[in-house]
Amino acid sequence: MSREDAIRRVREEVASLHGELIRYGLVVWTGGNVSGRVPGEDLFVIKPSGVSYDELTPESMILCDLDGAVVPGSEGSERSPSSDTAAHAYVYRHMPEVGGVVHTHSTYATAWAARGEAIPCHITAMADEFGGEIPVGPFAIIGDDSIGRGIVDTLSGHRSRAVLMQNHGPFTIGRDARDAVKAAVMCEDVARTMHLARQGGATIPIEQAHLDSLFDRYQNVYGQPAAETPAQEAQQ
Amino acid sequence: MSREDAIRRVREEVASLHGELIRYGLVVWTGGNVSGRVPGEDLFVIKPSGVSYDELTPESMILCDLDGAVVPGSEGSERSPSSDTAAHAYVYRHMPEVGGVVHTHSTYATAWAARGEAIPCHITAMADEFGGEIPVGPFAIIGDDSIGRGIVDTLSGHRSRAVLMQNHGPFTIGRDARDAVKAAVMCEDVARTMHLARQGGATIPIEQAHLDSLFDRYQNVYGQPAAETPAQEAQQ
Amino acid sequence: MSREDAIRRVREEVASLHGELIRYGLVVWTGGNVSGRVPGEDLFVIKPSGVSYDELTPESMILCDLDGAVVPGSEGSERSPSSDTAAHAYVYRHMPEVGGVVHTHSTYATAWAARGEAIPCHITAMADEFGGEIPVGPFAIIGDDSIGRGIVDTLSGHRSRAVLMQNHGPFTIGRDARDAVKAAVMCEDVARTMHLARQGGATIPIEQAHLDSLFDRYQNVYGQPAAETPAQEAQQ
Amino acid sequence: MSREDAIRRVREEVASLHGELIRYGLVVWTGGNVSGRVPGEDLFVIKPSGVSYDELTPESMILCDLDGAVVPGSEGSERSPSSDTAAHAYVYRHMPEVGGVVHTHSTYATAWAARGEAIPCHITAMADEFGGEIPVGPFAIIGDDSIGRGIVDTLSGHRSRAVLMQNHGPFTIGRDARDAVKAAVMCEDVARTMHLARQGGATIPIEQAHLDSLFDRYQNVYGQPAAETPAQEAQQ
Repeated sequence: MSREDAIRRVREEVASLHGELIRYGLVVWTGGNVSGRVPGEDLFVIKPSGVSYDELTPESMILCDLDGAVVPGSEGSERSPSSDTAAHAYVYRHMPEVGGVVHTHSTYATAWAARGEAIPCHITAMADEFGGEIPVGPFAIIGDDSIGRGIVDTLSGHRSRAVLMQNHGPFTIGRDARDAVKAAVMCEDVARTMHLARQGGATIPIEQAHLDSLFDRYQNVYGQPAAETPAQEAQQ
Repeated sequence: MSREDAIRRVREEVASLHGELIRYGLVVWTGGNVSGRVPGEDLFVIKPSGVSYDELTPESMILCDLDGAVVPGSEGSERSPSSDTAAHAYVYRHMPEVGGVVHTHSTYATAWAARGEAIPCHITAMADEFGGEIPVGPFAIIGDDSIGRGIVDTLSGHRSRAVLMQNHGPFTIGRDARDAVKAAVMCEDVARTMHLARQGGATIPIEQAHLDSLFDRYQNVYGQPAAETPAQEAQQ
Repeated sequence: MSREDAIRRVREEVASLHGELIRYGLVVWTGGNVSGRVPGEDLFVIKPSGVSYDELTPESMILCDLDGAVVPGSEGSERSPSSDTAAHAYVYRHMPEVGGVVHTHSTYATAWAARGEAIPCHITAMADEFGGEIPVGPFAIIGDDSIGRGIVDTLSGHRSRAVLMQNHGPFTIGRDARDAVKAAVMCEDVARTMHLARQGGATIPIEQAHLDSLFDRYQNVYGQPAAETPAQEAQQ
Repeated sequence: MSREDAIRRVREEVASLHGELIRYGLVVWTGGNVSGRVPGEDLFVIKPSGVSYDELTPESMILCDLDGAVVPGSEGSERSPSSDTAAHAYVYRHMPEVGGVVHTHSTYATAWAARGEAIPCHITAMADEFGGEIPVGPFAIIGDDSIGRGIVDTLSGHRSRAVLMQNHGPFTIGRDARDAVKAAVMCEDVARTMHLARQGGATIPIEQAHLDSLFDRYQNVYGQPAAETPAQEAQQ
């Protein structure tokens, strides 16, 4: 595939995946952002800043280099990229196996983040998807590399594709943008289920050996095409 | 009806019933699965594994025998069936009165399952539908017959058409796939109502004699066509 | 308007109002029912029993007399009316000012009902609509007049157009079917808000004099056409 | 732009923005209201009282002067304006920088209001949007200027564009109607997230210096066009 075709395809994928954030109730107004790496290029595509979800088109997505700088003259380059672009760029620079990054302020995940509390893994769906707890990353302020560094430091070598940045909300990664969106959807789903479970009393832990076998099976057997995830690669 | 027509009809019913799981918010992404027995045949139809709900058609459903093996050469047989197929097959083998099985990770039901706690029956709608509490089944791992056995052991001779598998989520059965989907919808509805009721203080039990009369009336009088449910048959 | 036109109009209104129960999330599957009195006649129109919301048409609604008996030969009379028909009929017989009745198992209202706890009126929207607390009615079983009697005994002379039948759920009344549906929608809305308010700590009561003036203004000034409600008449 | 064109444009904007209240679940039935100031005129446009959201058109919006009186002979003037018109008018008279006002009874914000409790700012999205806590205004009854005065007294000189009127619900302001609707949407979103966060245990405060820098950046850098907000002006 040509460079132009590869960029076009990622623009289309990233634009349409924002619809999944809406469908699953992960974002309100203009919040949240999805990005996707252009395969074979030191480039990624991300949402423009503060633009309504109804107006997101492939052409309005913004093409950036791995320092987070907008590629001059590219389509949409007259607009500002998402204010979280530096964090996305940092992840792409430091985690070459990552092909997609998502950030939301989804309600239940952000509630755990406001307490700075990791989500314990007491349900099998969470073991399948994340292999154990979803960890908390440090408090970090926009303006330098501290958010990106917090994500990378927390998720490197960790099974989880989701991190709850303290007082802020979840960032998720994946082998491509779609996989990172799936992680964002499942992160909110398990954050909600575990929240509600604990409201009613103590939850029952799952033994580590069972966590291991559930995670292993799901990553290798589930679904139609067997594909490696960045989390698996990071563990090797 | 010919064998082919019977299979066709169950394929259509199972494909379209997945839409009800979406409509009632019981599933996210590709989670959850519905199956239906082919009347008069040792066969059932189930969802393929890890396929988007937008892509489910009658042709993509998968035809299995009662050991859970895909029928060679049947439509859709190039794909893998749901990873829960073995559990569905076990239920069909051991509960001949069951014509449909549904599995979801619906939020509130899974929250009770994470605590390993049965849902008490303190609302009349739950007495109508389930005749008493919704029980908990054992912790069981995918990979052998332990999930299927847990379902059958818990629901045999029980009024409830729903079981909460510990740390996992609800499985429901019915006289056909539609009836099992109704049980999944009502299971989540009563799991949610009872959760919220208890958050505000102690709930008031319903006397056993009233549970019995509510369940009896609903199973025999409610609705237009009076039809037997597997739960009723199991009690005889 | 002729008798036939009046019946036709109520059939249309009752059929379409079931859509509002869906829109506001008050019902699942075939639960819930709306009825409306035919003005000037000893008749009311109600939903058939156990029929899907997608299939409700004016023609499928069922015409009953005030004893709850289906009018022989009327459109739809080959079907059974809602299993709550006797309760609706009892209300129409004993509260001539009531023109509409609604029953749901809406989640939050039913949660209060499961504890047998009245909803305190600590928000102005509830004072506007209900004039004070929403009361609890007795535990009652389908099969005789006990549900209808519980509704009438609790709401007669009470400002509230909603009653929480213990362990069961809300019944609401109104000057017509639309007004009763509005009461059902607002009942669930305030049940939810007051539930959540109390989860976070103690709520602040509203003085009786303020409750009185809010209720009086809303019943007499709010909206475009000033119309009397049955609750107001009942208080005179 | 002519006076007529300016009025027309605000009518269209206010009518369509009511759809956002529905989209984000902030209102039920006919509750809630949006108004917008006509730029350069001592006029504002507001929703009619008690009219269904399905029937709101630009022509049915009501044009008022800054005393809240309907402009005689203007389109829609045969109807009554929202029963909260006096409060909106008071805000426009006393806060010339405000171009839009919104009132809802959105669930979580109203739950905090029922306890008379300000929402603490322990999440960065809230620091971005509101710069700190969302304050509580006094209990006030419709019928004189007390609601409007409570809003103005609480929000003057405050960063927040939202106030929780005790026992009542949120009012929000903005540089135009759209900005006030955004504040209403974000107010409910953070009310919900902070409620859920606290249900699970203690939340972690954010240092004042970080609150300041988050608010400053978001107001000045975020989004495509850098525009001043009334809250910023009020602080100068």
